[in-house]
Order: sequence, then structure tokens, then C-alpha cells
Amino acid sequence: MSAVTESVIPRDLSALAAQGIWSPIIMPLSADLTIDQGRFISLAEGLLDAGCHGLAVFGTTSEATSFSVDERIALLDAALESGLAPERMMVGTGCCAYTDTLRLTRHAAERGCKKVLLLPPFYYKNMSDVGLAESFFRVIEGVSDPELRMFLYHFPRLSGVPVTLGLVGRLVERFPVTIAGVKDSSGDWSNTQALLEQFPELAIFPGSERFLLQGLRHGAAGCITATANVNAQPIRAVFNAWQDGAGDVDTLQLQITQTRDVIDGYPMVPALKYITAARYEDEAWRRVRPPMVELDADAGQRLLKELSDTGAG
Amino acid sequence: MSAVTESVIPRDLSALAAQGIWSPIIMPLSADLTIDQGRFISLAEGLLDAGCHGLAVFGTTSEATSFSVDERIALLDAALESGLAPERMMVGTGCCAYTDTLRLTRHAAERGCKKVLLLPPFYYKNMSDVGLAESFFRVIEGVSDPELRMFLYHFPRLSGVPVTLGLVGRLVERFPVTIAGVKDSSGDWSNTQALLEQFPELAIFPGSERFLLQGLRHGAAGCITATANVNAQPIRAVFNAWQDGAGDVDTLQLQITQTRDVIDGYPMVPALKYITAARYEDEAWRRVRPPMVELDADAGQRLLKELSDTGAG
Repeated sequence: MSAVTESVIPRDLSALAAQGIWSPIIMPLSADLTIDQGRFISLAEGLLDAGCHGLAVFGTTSEATSFSVDERIALLDAALESGLAPERMMVGTGCCAYTDTLRLTRHAAERGCKKVLLLPPFYYKNMSDVGLAESFFRVIEGVSDPELRMFLYHFPRLSGVPVTLGLVGRLVERFPVTIAGVKDSSGDWSNTQALLEQFPELAIFPGSERFLLQGLRHGAAGCITATANVNAQPIRAVFNAWQDGAGDVDTLQLQITQTRDVIDGYPMVPALKYITAARYEDEAWRRVRPPMVELDADAGQRLLKELSDTGAG
Repeated sequence: MSAVTESVIPRDLSALAAQGIWSPIIMPLSADLTIDQGRFISLAEGLLDAGCHGLAVFGTTSEATSFSVDERIALLDAALESGLAPERMMVGTGCCAYTDTLRLTRHAAERGCKKVLLLPPFYYKNMSDVGLAESFFRVIEGVSDPELRMFLYHFPRLSGVPVTLGLVGRLVERFPVTIAGVKDSSGDWSNTQALLEQFPELAIFPGSERFLLQGLRHGAAGCITATANVNAQPIRAVFNAWQDGAGDVDTLQLQITQTRDVIDGYPMVPALKYITAARYEDEAWRRVRPPMVELDADAGQRLLKELSDTGAG
């Protein structure tokens, strides 16, 4: 599996705006379903300690779209005040209204978080690349920060609005410095490969550790993967082994893929929260905002057992 | 076409929370793409004068999701201050975050707009009816206004999140007075018919005048249709002819369907804005927010000619 092929692109990851293992962090909730800032900060520190290069805050895994702009700003401010380093966060700021996206992106940049992760506006479907690009341009021009680094978030299964190669090209052409990368959550390796080949200057992150080693061998920047919430150290170990050229990296990849296979059998966010609740012996972690529902106890216990059986429990 | 069938449900429309022809109003923009309140109020008055029973403000046609919560609140306030009657508006308030939906719905209800139109939270796909219902329950309980009347917005092609019959049933069971109707923009008559049969106490509005007469004959409340922006009087004429049992209602329906056929050949919102710009001889009307783009002049002129050829110009 994942053998080195002829299409390997040698790349200096340190030249990219971000690289390594990034965890799109789950969002802990209080009983009234407001964000629990204390638990958030504690998990964030834990994930960085466990080996994550950084945290994607307010992506799909953070239930980002289930929070208002004000709630998202308040959490980011609390995280920064707690001492979390702004350069180790990639802040999700893409909303349906570019005015919301602009407000969130400007706020993040002003607070030192120069790395932002943007969904395209996702209500209207089959919009042209011209119209989608314009929504990004208005944000970039509105923020007007030369240090801003924008990562495009391609997750067509949820957003219904693909970030096509054509759209990436259009954005890169106009803002070759600001547009810094793509998170490819399509699950389609051929799309990831096309991004790597057509945009060698961008940091391309597969949205799953399934493609970590294969990606690294083809020039990817690492991965941004939800399951890093519960499996950060082994995922980081693959990255390290690949970088150092030491250890049996294929076997390490196989192990993290097996863990991913188990978790993929369950709804992702409730599953990650259930596992986290078990680890911290703290059921509060299970809470989700509607329209999600918590994993029920039967499914949750089955998940924990399956993880334990793979040795990842 | 549309012959009376055995499944006609006799219904007293006046017993419903809303009935008749409602126009989901297009949103005029200033050069900086902020909402142009003056042009909005002028169009709103014009549509009511032309025969609309009411206006759906901030649905798909209003580019609702392209505006922030604050922008939506400011426009509603301006409309009310201009003297637009709150009972003649149905305010779109459904967002991805129930906290946003709650804020918008509470604001509308407090200002006397008791009729609200709600998309389900539309980012996460394949959510359970339990989770989707919970997002509505939190809004209804949070607003806590016995006069609130909620219309559910089923537009799966854009939202990607259907308001299924099961979800409607779950909501009606818990809040049989607040849940007042459904806007069915599926374009699937069999779904509209199932709603009419299973929920005879609800005001069911097809989302297109294509189904107006057929709907009325089967117990629908009327229709909520984007093209009322540019064809209100003829659509109202079908409603009146049906209600009065006077005139050749089938021929009137055929005429509005022909106009709809023409407009359906173009992207809806840009097309409606182009036609409105032509009618008012005011190109400012053409502006749209990204991700939409304006109709180009070639397409626009073709559209106007086709409309003129049908006699609807």
C-alpha cells in the first residue's frame, strides 16, 4: 500500500504557510449548549501536547455553522486570552454571507490569527466560479492584511458547493500570496492529487489521515483530520517517521487507518465527543448542538469496544 | 390539465394562518452591496398593490443567507417603520445556528411579525428528524410567543436538508398551533399532495405558481412564488377566479405557467432583478450579492424578448 510512485513531488514543507498534523477541534458545551470555554482550552492544550502541529478551530468538527458569529468571536478571544498561540490555530471563518465571513476573518487577523479556513458560501448551489471567487475577493480586500493566509475548504458532501480546481486557480491568480492552501475533505484522492500537481506552491491537506502517508509522498503538507481529537499521537508518529525516514512508516499508517475505519462507522462528531467523554470520564463532553444528536449508549459502548479491539482504545 | 379529481379536499382558507399569493421579495442593493431600504419599501408596496396577499421577506429569493443577522434585522425594522403591515409579511428566520434563528425569530415576533418561514439548519446533511426537530423546538420554546406561527421551508435542492413528512409530523405533534404551514419548493407535486392529505390543518403553499390551481383544488393555501415579483397581478387573477368560481381559470393558469416557463430558463434571482430593472428603468435593481452574478446583457435582453413574446412582457 501507498508505495512511492513516479509522481512524487519533492517539497520543502517549511516553505508552506502551514504543515503537519492539524486537529479540527471538537467544541465542548455547557448544559445550556453554550460553549464551555474552560473545557475547550483544556482540550486544545492537550491536543497540542499530544503532537498536533495546530488546531483548526470552527471547521465542520467544531460544529462551526451551529454557532453565531458572536459566539465564534467570543470563543476565539477566550482561547487567545488563555495563552493559546495564534499561529497554532487555523480559524474557520467561511459563512454563507460574505459580510459574516469578512467580520470573522478580520477579527481573527486583527487578533494575530493569520491562518483562516474558508468554506465557500454554501446555501446557493451551482453558482459560477466567477460569483464564488467574488465572495472570496471581497473578504480578502476587506481584511486587507498582507499577512493573511487563506486555506480553502473543499467538503462537497456537506457544503454542496465544491471548491473546484478552476476556482482555486482563479483565486490563486489574483491573490497568489494570500491563498495559501486547500483542505481537501472530498475523500477523493484523485482530486487531492490534481491539487498537488496543479498548485505545487499551495499547502494541500487531505481531510483524513487515511491519505496522510500517500499525501506526504506526493507533496501534501500533512493532514487536517477530525480523528486527531482522539488519536493525535499515532497520527503524528506517521508524520515524524516519514519526515525522519525512520521506522516502519507503512505499518504506522496502517494502524491509524484501522482506527479511522472504526470511527468512520459512526457519526463523526458525536463519536469523537463520546470517546473524549470516556477518556476524561466526563459525560459533559458528549453534548452536541442540534441538528446533531449525541451517540446513544449502545452505539457508544460498541464504539469504545471496537477501538479497544484495534489497540487504539 | 389540472382537472378536478376525486381527492379534492374542501377547505376554508380563512381558517389558515396565511393564504393567497405571497411574493418572496427580491432584495435591492446599493453600489456597495448593502441593502437599499428605499427601493425595498417601494417594491414591497408595489407588490401588495399589484395583488400579493403578502410578502415573504428573507427567503431564497431575497438572498437571505447572503446577509448577516444584523443586516436582516435592520431591513425588517426599516420596513416596519415605513408602515408595511407586519401581518402581511412572512419573515424568513431559519439559519444554520439555532441561536441565530432564535434571535431573528424573537425579533420578528416582538415587532409584530408573527409569521415566520424557517429553513432547517442546512449545513450538516443526513441529520435525524430528532435532531432537526430539536433545533425547531429550541426556537419555539425560546421565543415563547403563543401568537407565533411557523411555516416550514422545504427546498431540498438548495438546502440539501429535506423537511420530511416525518419531521413535519413530529413538529406538529408537539406544537400543533405554532406550526402553521409548509412552503413546499420541492417542485414535486406528490410531496405537496402528501402534505395536503396528511396535514389538513396546515397551510400548504407550493413554491411555484405552476401548482397554484392544482394546489387550490386539492386544499392548498395559495402559493409562495418568486415570480410574483414580476407577475403578481396575473397570478392573483388565478386565485381570484378560483375563489369566485368565475372566469376561465384554467386558461389563466396556463398563461402564468407559460410566463414561469420562460423565467425558469434563467437563474431565478438575477432574472427577476433584470426584469425589475427594465420595468423601473433603473439598472441598480440588477445588483446581486456574491456568490450570485448579474444576468449579462445578452441573456437579459433575450429574457425580456421571450417574456414579451408570451404577452407577459
